[in-house]
Amino acid sequence: MSIITIERKVLEKNDELASQNREVFQHHGAFVLNVVSSPGSGKTSILERTLERLKNKLRIAVIEGDVQTDFDAQRIAAFGVPVVQIITNGGCHLDAKLVHDALGNLDLNGIQLLIIENVGNLVCPANYDLGEHTKVVLASTTEGDDKPLKYPTMFRNASVLIVNKIDLLPYVRCDIAELKNNARRINPSLMIFETSCTKQEGIDRWCTWLEEQVHNHSSGNTGKII
Amino acid sequence: MSIITIERKVLEKNDELASQNREVFQHHGAFVLNVVSSPGSGKTSILERTLERLKNKLRIAVIEGDVQTDFDAQRIAAFGVPVVQIITNGGCHLDAKLVHDALGNLDLNGIQLLIIENVGNLVCPANYDLGEHTKVVLASTTEGDDKPLKYPTMFRNASVLIVNKIDLLPYVRCDIAELKNNARRINPSLMIFETSCTKQEGIDRWCTWLEEQVHNHSSGNTGKII
Repeated sequence: MSIITIERKVLEKNDELASQNREVFQHHGAFVLNVVSSPGSGKTSILERTLERLKNKLRIAVIEGDVQTDFDAQRIAAFGVPVVQIITNGGCHLDAKLVHDALGNLDLNGIQLLIIENVGNLVCPANYDLGEHTKVVLASTTEGDDKPLKYPTMFRNASVLIVNKIDLLPYVRCDIAELKNNARRINPSLMIFETSCTKQEGIDRWCTWLEEQVHNHSSGNTGKII
Repeated sequence: MSIITIERKVLEKNDELASQNREVFQHHGAFVLNVVSSPGSGKTSILERTLERLKNKLRIAVIEGDVQTDFDAQRIAAFGVPVVQIITNGGCHLDAKLVHDALGNLDLNGIQLLIIENVGNLVCPANYDLGEHTKVVLASTTEGDDKPLKYPTMFRNASVLIVNKIDLLPYVRCDIAELKNNARRINPSLMIFETSCTKQEGIDRWCTWLEEQVHNHSSGNTGKII
């Protein structure tokens, strides 16, 4: 019982700090994504494909969350965008405080799009608002079509689902229609994209949508932000 | 600081309960696995292939840990072995208390092998001893070859690594030699198996080894248990 109370307090405190982060983002006019998934679903690969297409159209910065290593941050830095690394040292999720502290090392002036790549974990990051405008969950086809039902909180709290690794569909037991149905059973308003980073499929549609969100946001049309 | 103290207390209490579980397992002569991985790496599929081969050779029981749904427990129950489902209701890992409570619904008399399938999460279950004799971590080739370095605690605390979905190697960017090197950098004594559940590759070798462990254990040759 006391543990539950502590958890609630931790989440309440997190929500407060997330609101403060959101105000900072609003002040700078930055549209912010929180990208979550299991380890190895392709978060960094999606970011790479996204940066290839959008880095000359939008001013983008990235916060990389990892349990250990700066491998992902190095991959992102290769695109010449500002990157701040958060290493959680065993911690299973990013929280608003970690993001707040990371912002001390990131100049948001002029940044239109900030992408936060969370720790690979389909459970714990679900309840931690970072102050983002949109939570994007990735599910790779290799994980099977039942994951939205088995890890519902993440799919319920996300606004966008990217079904990644669709090039592997011929080789894995995953019914993509069933995967999308399961996701919509948990969250009927999910916007869904289907992508393959290796075959470059579906990335243009995702990037077009994302660019539109950023422009809607910076023109103050916040009603359209999901 | 207080949070760290609470975490330490939680882990100390867990270790106490895990020791009690281990005594219960020893008393019944049951060899116990704690199977961990990311969501969708193939824990349940490995269990299915294992039960196909060993259910008529060994008396096996299974504890299924899931955040939500009893899908996996149903898949296992189809093999006619005793299964107890633990639903964590959002909890990100099994702990020794949950397993202790589950044992109240499981008759261990005569059980030679108890397999505990943990929640799909490569971070949080790493530090929670359940009283098992051997922690088995799965990494699927689709997750890439860097995961041991990025999620080191799990690979450090496991004794066995099963590299699953090797049939997908031709289609994914994963150097299996590099994956194994990375795993051994974290944990030089890891026993490593390579498997494909869909192509039935490597399963016999894994099952032969597992059967041997169970027989060593029941003959009191505990020195060989890893």
